[in-house]
Amino acid sequence: MERSVNFKEILAEKTAETEKILQKYLPREEGLTAELSAAINYSMRAPGKRLRPLMLLESYRMFGGQEQVAEPFAAALEMIHTHSLIHDDLPALDNDDYRRGKKATWAVYGEAMGVLSGDTLLNYAYEVALSAFDCKKNSQEVILALQLLACKTGIFGMLGGQSVDVAMEGRLMDEETLYFIYKKKTSALLEAALMLGPVLAGASSQKVRLMEQVGSYVGLAFQIRDDILDVTGTAKSIGKPVHSDEKNQKTTYVSLKGLPGAEREAARLSAEAYRLFDSLEEKNPFLGQLLMQLAERQK
Amino acid sequence: MERSVNFKEILAEKTAETEKILQKYLPREEGLTAELSAAINYSMRAPGKRLRPLMLLESYRMFGGQEQVAEPFAAALEMIHTHSLIHDDLPALDNDDYRRGKKATWAVYGEAMGVLSGDTLLNYAYEVALSAFDCKKNSQEVILALQLLACKTGIFGMLGGQSVDVAMEGRLMDEETLYFIYKKKTSALLEAALMLGPVLAGASSQKVRLMEQVGSYVGLAFQIRDDILDVTGTAKSIGKPVHSDEKNQKTTYVSLKGLPGAEREAARLSAEAYRLFDSLEEKNPFLGQLLMQLAERQK
Repeated sequence: MERSVNFKEILAEKTAETEKILQKYLPREEGLTAELSAAINYSMRAPGKRLRPLMLLESYRMFGGQEQVAEPFAAALEMIHTHSLIHDDLPALDNDDYRRGKKATWAVYGEAMGVLSGDTLLNYAYEVALSAFDCKKNSQEVILALQLLACKTGIFGMLGGQSVDVAMEGRLMDEETLYFIYKKKTSALLEAALMLGPVLAGASSQKVRLMEQVGSYVGLAFQIRDDILDVTGTAKSIGKPVHSDEKNQKTTYVSLKGLPGAEREAARLSAEAYRLFDSLEEKNPFLGQLLMQLAERQK
Repeated sequence: MERSVNFKEILAEKTAETEKILQKYLPREEGLTAELSAAINYSMRAPGKRLRPLMLLESYRMFGGQEQVAEPFAAALEMIHTHSLIHDDLPALDNDDYRRGKKATWAVYGEAMGVLSGDTLLNYAYEVALSAFDCKKNSQEVILALQLLACKTGIFGMLGGQSVDVAMEGRLMDEETLYFIYKKKTSALLEAALMLGPVLAGASSQKVRLMEQVGSYVGLAFQIRDDILDVTGTAKSIGKPVHSDEKNQKTTYVSLKGLPGAEREAARLSAEAYRLFDSLEEKNPFLGQLLMQLAERQK
């Protein structure tokens, strides 16, 4: 797909708009819990692409949504994502001192506060998402959106994927297990982002399912590209150490299927995602470009 | 207040009923996430008094509630409480190997799974609570109950209290800070238990507030009694080491106000709780006895 010349500009503008929305929902740093709020805001303010809330807001527009009700869900989704980053970095998990060029939350506020601020941010996501009822009282759409958000986050979604990833550490995996981890750990929140828009805009469940499939393919393609880049990229071009999977003897799509097989699968997935997305009568060319950029990432 | 001779029997019976309800909502141990579910169920099945769900179900009955809608909230509340125990025991927090005579969750399943199973259980609580909409579609009561549950759990509730407790570790505290920690860390979920019943039964906000106050006083009295027992009790009678507060140079209500001051305050709080509870036209003598037992605990 051709990328419009000013895609980058529009992306920058829309990311800035999304950023503004997120800031509105952050907790105030006051009273005895000021440090807890500060730890949460420290992690939420670290520079990020804001992909999930941006995708959510764009998928809402795509299906004709025009109300404020998508905003609390956009903020909640980024909070859930950030919660997972805070806990991933803990010494008990990935033991990372740095995240996006800044010290990890636990490295600044201590390990106990790392655990508690992650917990509180996950809970706060629900507090924020539940405030959507202030925009739409008794709304069946908001109820469905909440159930969807919780499902994609929890045992059947992101956290389920993370737990299998942890349980399989250092063990060889078959394709099924690897796909399960990718689909849950990476795709689940992208699926949520693309489904919450149509759900809140009152789209049919058939269309919501189609958007879920798009999110699933994009997430898988993104993750397989990550495996490919770890082999073919340079540390400079992708901004992190390369060949780390081989060093850590990690099962990846490349280790299972070889480089050409992985390239083929990533291409197939991103073509399939685009075909499905394009089959909808509802259009959002910007979102289409964003999804392709994700699925075909070169860094 | 006189305790009826068969209070213990009724309590045992009602606890067993509550236990049965909780079991219904536990995740199945199947598929690739079987270990995650097992870690969650290990902690949820550890013997507990089930006070919070029991109080919730009794406060629902007290206000005339007769539907199943309180059950998912009862399960969710116990899940949130158990989540806090799993994370409290982690090496980064209290570093406890044992909980209720069993190995702590992290000590059995590893530290990474300790973090993730706690996260997943917190999230699962919302999945379960959101299933209440299956009993009552578009219910304003369910919406209010969800908002209340999230608020009492999060930054303005239990997790806020835990974070201040962690931040103040090893530092002297004034009465205001100590009360804040007790009110949030201990009282918040008890308040939620007593408020969710009337909220779900459609009681007036005035009565819900009164039940909140009862929960707050009972929680504070409970916590001050804990401080007193640490000084006056024997390890055998209270089932845990005594004089630990003094050893750890912890600020407690006893260290701030002395033993007689603490005794007076606990008695004042439990009398006040009972006066408020008794002022309601809605009655539940069993719940009244349970609350007094908590506020006047001798072990």
